[in-house]
Amino acid sequence: MTTKRIAVLTSGGDAPGMNACIRAIVVASEGAGHTVIGFEHGFHGLLAPNWRKLDSKKVHNIIQRGGTILRSARCEEFKQDSAAKNAAKHLSELAIDAILILGGDGSFRGAKHLSKFWDGQVIGLPATIDNDIYGTDTTIGYYTAIQTAMDSIDKVRDTADAFERIFLVEVMGRHAGFLGAKAAISGAANYAILPELFTDPDETLNDIHQQLSIHRKRYGHESFIIVLTENLWPEGINTLAEKLENLTGGEVRPVILGHVQRGGSPVSQDRILATTLGVEAVRCVEQGKHCIMVGQQNLEPAEVPLEQTWETKKVFSDSLTRTMKTMLNERHSWDLTK
Amino acid sequence: MTTKRIAVLTSGGDAPGMNACIRAIVVASEGAGHTVIGFEHGFHGLLAPNWRKLDSKKVHNIIQRGGTILRSARCEEFKQDSAAKNAAKHLSELAIDAILILGGDGSFRGAKHLSKFWDGQVIGLPATIDNDIYGTDTTIGYYTAIQTAMDSIDKVRDTADAFERIFLVEVMGRHAGFLGAKAAISGAANYAILPELFTDPDETLNDIHQQLSIHRKRYGHESFIIVLTENLWPEGINTLAEKLENLTGGEVRPVILGHVQRGGSPVSQDRILATTLGVEAVRCVEQGKHCIMVGQQNLEPAEVPLEQTWETKKVFSDSLTRTMKTMLNERHSWDLTK
Amino acid sequence: MTTKRIAVLTSGGDAPGMNACIRAIVVASEGAGHTVIGFEHGFHGLLAPNWRKLDSKKVHNIIQRGGTILRSARCEEFKQDSAAKNAAKHLSELAIDAILILGGDGSFRGAKHLSKFWDGQVIGLPATIDNDIYGTDTTIGYYTAIQTAMDSIDKVRDTADAFERIFLVEVMGRHAGFLGAKAAISGAANYAILPELFTDPDETLNDIHQQLSIHRKRYGHESFIIVLTENLWPEGINTLAEKLENLTGGEVRPVILGHVQRGGSPVSQDRILATTLGVEAVRCVEQGKHCIMVGQQNLEPAEVPLEQTWETKKVFSDSLTRTMKTMLNERHSWDLTK
Amino acid sequence: MTTKRIAVLTSGGDAPGMNACIRAIVVASEGAGHTVIGFEHGFHGLLAPNWRKLDSKKVHNIIQRGGTILRSARCEEFKQDSAAKNAAKHLSELAIDAILILGGDGSFRGAKHLSKFWDGQVIGLPATIDNDIYGTDTTIGYYTAIQTAMDSIDKVRDTADAFERIFLVEVMGRHAGFLGAKAAISGAANYAILPELFTDPDETLNDIHQQLSIHRKRYGHESFIIVLTENLWPEGINTLAEKLENLTGGEVRPVILGHVQRGGSPVSQDRILATTLGVEAVRCVEQGKHCIMVGQQNLEPAEVPLEQTWETKKVFSDSLTRTMKTMLNERHSWDLTK
Repeated sequence: MTTKRIAVLTSGGDAPGMNACIRAIVVASEGAGHTVIGFEHGFHGLLAPNWRKLDSKKVHNIIQRGGTILRSARCEEFKQDSAAKNAAKHLSELAIDAILILGGDGSFRGAKHLSKFWDGQVIGLPATIDNDIYGTDTTIGYYTAIQTAMDSIDKVRDTADAFERIFLVEVMGRHAGFLGAKAAISGAANYAILPELFTDPDETLNDIHQQLSIHRKRYGHESFIIVLTENLWPEGINTLAEKLENLTGGEVRPVILGHVQRGGSPVSQDRILATTLGVEAVRCVEQGKHCIMVGQQNLEPAEVPLEQTWETKKVFSDSLTRTMKTMLNERHSWDLTK
Repeated sequence: MTTKRIAVLTSGGDAPGMNACIRAIVVASEGAGHTVIGFEHGFHGLLAPNWRKLDSKKVHNIIQRGGTILRSARCEEFKQDSAAKNAAKHLSELAIDAILILGGDGSFRGAKHLSKFWDGQVIGLPATIDNDIYGTDTTIGYYTAIQTAMDSIDKVRDTADAFERIFLVEVMGRHAGFLGAKAAISGAANYAILPELFTDPDETLNDIHQQLSIHRKRYGHESFIIVLTENLWPEGINTLAEKLENLTGGEVRPVILGHVQRGGSPVSQDRILATTLGVEAVRCVEQGKHCIMVGQQNLEPAEVPLEQTWETKKVFSDSLTRTMKTMLNERHSWDLTK
Repeated sequence: MTTKRIAVLTSGGDAPGMNACIRAIVVASEGAGHTVIGFEHGFHGLLAPNWRKLDSKKVHNIIQRGGTILRSARCEEFKQDSAAKNAAKHLSELAIDAILILGGDGSFRGAKHLSKFWDGQVIGLPATIDNDIYGTDTTIGYYTAIQTAMDSIDKVRDTADAFERIFLVEVMGRHAGFLGAKAAISGAANYAILPELFTDPDETLNDIHQQLSIHRKRYGHESFIIVLTENLWPEGINTLAEKLENLTGGEVRPVILGHVQRGGSPVSQDRILATTLGVEAVRCVEQGKHCIMVGQQNLEPAEVPLEQTWETKKVFSDSLTRTMKTMLNERHSWDLTK
Repeated sequence: MTTKRIAVLTSGGDAPGMNACIRAIVVASEGAGHTVIGFEHGFHGLLAPNWRKLDSKKVHNIIQRGGTILRSARCEEFKQDSAAKNAAKHLSELAIDAILILGGDGSFRGAKHLSKFWDGQVIGLPATIDNDIYGTDTTIGYYTAIQTAMDSIDKVRDTADAFERIFLVEVMGRHAGFLGAKAAISGAANYAILPELFTDPDETLNDIHQQLSIHRKRYGHESFIIVLTENLWPEGINTLAEKLENLTGGEVRPVILGHVQRGGSPVSQDRILATTLGVEAVRCVEQGKHCIMVGQQNLEPAEVPLEQTWETKKVFSDSLTRTMKTMLNERHSWDLTK
């Protein structure tokens, strides 16, 4: 087998597990005799160029660290042809055979853009807490973000129960409800306002009102937790809190989880996914693959054309929808046999 | 020894460790032959009255739970004499010898108010995440809140480092900086805006600006975390974030930790403090003590007259001030020998 | 839809998430008008009989608790026909339509045995930290046990690095290496001795010796962590530690994680799996299913005949084997293109 | 103020918080213009010599890491005069003014030994999970070890409750019961066998037997957790487990927490203590202090002659003894008024 020169970079919002993936790429490569270099600050590093050599020793003891040792950034400039050509030039000068790009759909668009001007192998690895990438069951960072959001909801429930109060918890997700759905289920929330299940504000308010009344009868107390995906409620979480206070006559406290959800030591599932995808990506390099994302479907690796990852919309599985409707939003009237 | 009838209630903002304290009170009492009843929803439970008998079995496996099994509430109504008289009547009817009240200074004022109309033993136990109670080194819930805030700052640092960004983290504390100071030190924050160290907004902004410049030279990167106590910055955290953006020319992201800080399984130090104070409170009941708070000073129990707990202001120890100034706010110019 | 009377019990080794599953069964059932009763102490509860009615209120705030509110037990006695007949009699007397049994393969054999003498619906739900159940990608409790084992390995690595020492960590798994494999990958262990990859002791010792030598060259230090599945090394972990000390001339410290792996608040993935399977099990009851296990394959529910769950052996996926060989046991010589 | 050259090393068993302390020493020193170098592998580093320069950048983002970036070791050789003379020679050659030694009593004996042959400032900082150092209320690492042991006991309780079984949990502590006492209180254990409260095996077994019988009556179940300090029971934990099985007729499961207790990200209290002591130690250097340990008493720094730290035995506070006897070992007969 010919050994290759492999580049790696992390781009877009950082996600826990990026370091675990970098480590796997380096260890797998080194075991096979490949060389690995890392570009810093995402696509900016390709333009500077700003890079350093990576080896096993340098990635020892990083599997447990959040963030990314290669730093990340968003890079508007890279949308221009001139930037991508410049990057291609640097990659050629460094004699790179393949570049592995960890990030979300914005990063994959950048990867595709680069591939128009560079004939090396371009391979994407899905890393975003939002899980909004088609072609992979889950993305690196998603598991940890669920756990972080769930831990926060667990804590909120303690005080919600103590005071019998309504709480509104805003989670990330950009325009997708995956994180919100899983956080709501695992946190035993009572309602979830998610892009996938949202119709309009008034209907939602009515539905919450109805559920609150059923809830009080069933549980004999007022503690009620609503999970809300960011960027969804027309005028924001504080407006929603006010509307709910008017509706219920009680206090409604908003909690915005914010950037805390991006960080933290990756949970085991993110480390395993990141390590697995890192190994598979090196394998794809060896097999000469090009312009794909390496994801995971049904516990086995899946190769997906880059553009498909953002062109096809990822949707809730039937089972996830059913669980949501049974445990949360429609459980007062839901017929499971349907 | 005569056995007694002991009442317990939790009042004000809930704090992790309240359940551990209730458990200790019940187990210690039962071992000595006393009877324990718990009033629900704070002082409201005294007025209803709304109570239930507690025994060891009922408090099994609650030491690790946040919130309070007795529920809590704020009770404006209790400030009136008529309410306190009503409570006194119910305590007499139930033949209660002593009442143990867990909470912060508002709860202790309520306790003192009750003692004017009832001649049983009134004993306070300090439970608040704010640690703003004079006469005790720490309060039940404070340790867990520090840990929660620190965990969040650790997570924020991951993403701050990845993006080399300035983050602003708002922690609770009401009007005291204890939580902010400990969260900032343990979270390795770079600056803290706390009531105890605050002068005026402009001076603070200038100081941050100066420190940022030293920081960049020393560390070679831009990641910088500022901890802010709630209720302190004149126009709120978002205004401060904008001002810092103008000042630095970079992005500044605000994170409000919020009610998450009130909940969670109590950390070991809170469970130990809560258990110790619960045992000591039962001992005080047996010794006929009245109108005191049972706190802890220098690892030993301390009895403090109730009114002293709010009349005297609790301040930073010399060592805490020195650590703050060395590791955070003035470290560029601080002379430790002073 | 006809409403039904549904029984539930937990059997065999307890697994984190059992409570989350009980909660989902109760909430989903109540929403559809079914009645739920819980038998206590596993199959013993069917024999006593020892049961209680469950409703939403009783399962509030249990999603986050390890163990099982219904208690568990192993029940040798239930292997006899007379015991199963006795259980069938009690189920008929209580007019139960369906029984949901949470546990591992021993519990499912018990379930099958019961079905010979009772014509109600018998449905199994996979709950064991060992993940050794065919027909479901993962089992309830497996995710939490991986996280617990990984957290311990993370801690061991701190001290292994500080002292540059070899550590041997024994994890559970009964006779399967799933837990060991995932703990080793996520904990960044350096070697794993698992049933699925084990040949014989001497060959293993030689292989470790060889890897240690490569490791020292590559990393420049001696810290090395080996994960071992319980019940595998012929004379136990202490004997292996001694052999390794003789082989390497350095100290080798054994750590047995033990029963700690069974407990703890379930991680988000276990709560989600448990909730999803609970909902699907109620759906299967409504659809009249019988003598099946409800598991999960490829993120969708899967119904598997009970006897198949233990008759077919569950094996490592190709990707898991590849990751293991690349990151751990054979990485010095592994050719990914094979 | 004259700037100084300060050396630092970590010695003996590693303790979480050592890195936080190294960071504080470096940041505080750099702020005042001092130079810091770190010796590697404890006293071995003084002999090699093996050292590197430390600055703020090198200690960024280590506050949260367990272990020690300077590595640690035990060094029998250093007991000899020739070794200490050799170390003194190296310190003089490097023009070191002061050396800060983090560790336990063995390390402090080494520090004292060094001071006989070197006239620079020798200052100890208490870092051991055992807390067995006189002159300081707590030691760096102790808080995290309590939390780790408590977390494990919480997990064991889940399975103990589910199976109604007796568990025996062995914690570290060398020859002191501080860790065991705090782990037992915070973990809500039912009994503790600690050096400070131990009389003889037979009496202990009788006492446990008696308490078990009271426990069953009071709680109506068999779940019972006993904490045992290592090195205490004459023939080890497995022998004790057997004896308890004979005594009770039920299963008794031993769990040895082991080296897991040494690692992990330091909890907030350890980071705060470590940071505070690091700052105070630099202050002591500036003040010309010599041959002392810098500890903490009553929330303020305390300077203690080195030899006093091991010559005087540290004992349980009255309050700790009372809490232990009320909540654990003698609660069936304890009279709090004594």
